[in-house]
Amino acid sequence: MAEPVTAPSPESRALGRLYQSKGERYDGAAQMGMVALRSLEDENESCSSEAPGVSYESVDAGGAPAIWVTPAGPNVHGVIVYLHGGGFRVGSPTSHRKLAAHFAKAANSHALVLHYRLAPEHPYPAALDDCIAAYQWVIHRGFKPNEIAIAGDSAGGNLAAATILRLRAEGAALPAAAVAFSPWYNLKNDLPSMESNDAKDLLVHKAALHDMAAAYAGKHSLEDPLVNPLYADLAGFPPIFISVGSDETLEDDSVHFSEKARKAGVTVELERVAGQQHVHVLMAGRAPEADTSIQKAGSWVSRHLT
Amino acid sequence: MAEPVTAPSPESRALGRLYQSKGERYDGAAQMGMVALRSLEDENESCSSEAPGVSYESVDAGGAPAIWVTPAGPNVHGVIVYLHGGGFRVGSPTSHRKLAAHFAKAANSHALVLHYRLAPEHPYPAALDDCIAAYQWVIHRGFKPNEIAIAGDSAGGNLAAATILRLRAEGAALPAAAVAFSPWYNLKNDLPSMESNDAKDLLVHKAALHDMAAAYAGKHSLEDPLVNPLYADLAGFPPIFISVGSDETLEDDSVHFSEKARKAGVTVELERVAGQQHVHVLMAGRAPEADTSIQKAGSWVSRHLT
Repeated sequence: MAEPVTAPSPESRALGRLYQSKGERYDGAAQMGMVALRSLEDENESCSSEAPGVSYESVDAGGAPAIWVTPAGPNVHGVIVYLHGGGFRVGSPTSHRKLAAHFAKAANSHALVLHYRLAPEHPYPAALDDCIAAYQWVIHRGFKPNEIAIAGDSAGGNLAAATILRLRAEGAALPAAAVAFSPWYNLKNDLPSMESNDAKDLLVHKAALHDMAAAYAGKHSLEDPLVNPLYADLAGFPPIFISVGSDETLEDDSVHFSEKARKAGVTVELERVAGQQHVHVLMAGRAPEADTSIQKAGSWVSRHLT
Repeated sequence: MAEPVTAPSPESRALGRLYQSKGERYDGAAQMGMVALRSLEDENESCSSEAPGVSYESVDAGGAPAIWVTPAGPNVHGVIVYLHGGGFRVGSPTSHRKLAAHFAKAANSHALVLHYRLAPEHPYPAALDDCIAAYQWVIHRGFKPNEIAIAGDSAGGNLAAATILRLRAEGAALPAAAVAFSPWYNLKNDLPSMESNDAKDLLVHKAALHDMAAAYAGKHSLEDPLVNPLYADLAGFPPIFISVGSDETLEDDSVHFSEKARKAGVTVELERVAGQQHVHVLMAGRAPEADTSIQKAGSWVSRHLT
């Protein structure tokens, strides 16, 4: 099912180098506060190039700050609500603005890059509340559910799925499509790739994931589908595009979720990219693998918004 | 000469709070490496809102990475070469992109936000070499000197002046105008406001300035006009707009440079903004004082580019 194995491009290897550099600094950062950790995380911003012709507006999206992204040119259609990764504790629109811009451009859609509240200061369900409020803000701005996709990477992929599950539980109209780049669905971190890819993954390891899951879920069950969408009944879930790298400890989150979704009758497109690290699309505009995945995801979104 | 004293806006006070927070972290950061310090500095990014309708392109500007900024709409004219501050050691296009975008929009000009090389890894004249190369890159892109302004804040204001002085020494055609926000010209740090404003300035103090000057100048004389433009013969310098806050230890850098430039026959517009901190224009789009200064500087640039 994976793509043919070819060597990662030299450009795409820059992501692994950044992750190693960050890993060394995190290891020495036992005393480091969340503010400093968040500053380091925002270095991810440097991975992506600017997407030419895209403009931005700072907005309040139902209570949380966000960036409204607009590609230049005619026939811009629909909105991608974009939820950044960072283990529910770090990450921001700063770290993911350019990735979201490339993605919006590939879909010829607007994007809304949301600064949802972070753990540990704001545990579950604060981030999810912000995502729901942002979706409603987009609706109030005049977009119909079938013009909206919800997307995210890593923890943001989890939030994208949880947002849809909660909208379904509330009886609200669902967005037309979902996209997840290297989603972290299973906060129990007990799928086989967690061990089998541990030596290849340059960023994501079990101990840190457990810390992040605890900070986000608090005393909440890690089997609650709104915290762990791998435990959800996926009937009625909208079509989903998932992209994951073959060198990720989180590879099986994508594989198992895809299998479960297909069994529930959901349309799934799963892209497994050989030799790539966690959220390799952060190399948007700089590495061919990232650009290929973003083009695929963007075209796919464009076909699913009506 | 200063503006009437009114209380700073509540919005503009956010800058002081950020500076105090950073000061506390720097004080505890004796072991912190330059990479982490640069991450913290990039938090300045959060001060500014996105400038609607402005788009960006990542470029190589004669050897150094840069962001090419383009406001939407007709009659965009000329280029502002923008040199960020950060004491020659930190700061980046990330921290200053949005400030430069607001400024470019106010002038209806392009901007080039340059990622020049930083000390201590790259002491003088590395940064200045990059600025000269970027100016030549703009010329090669088809812009005439009278369509170019060179601007910067803090250490970037120093580099803007030094770039012009070196172009003059090399016999090159000079840009039409210069702009400096809270420039740090005098690397000897011995003007009266360094002491008299010390209690009011929430970021910039003498000891850190001495460290930065040493990292940048190395064994080079701190009285070399290309390191310390306050010691330059300013005859033939283009018209310059300078903005500085009344609460800055660096206030006299602007005042003394303005006096010296006027005596040399240079057209100078000096704006002293009551109650504002270092580089208060970082609050672009968020504080009225910042927006007023940027509008003034932008209109001024627009009048000086032909």
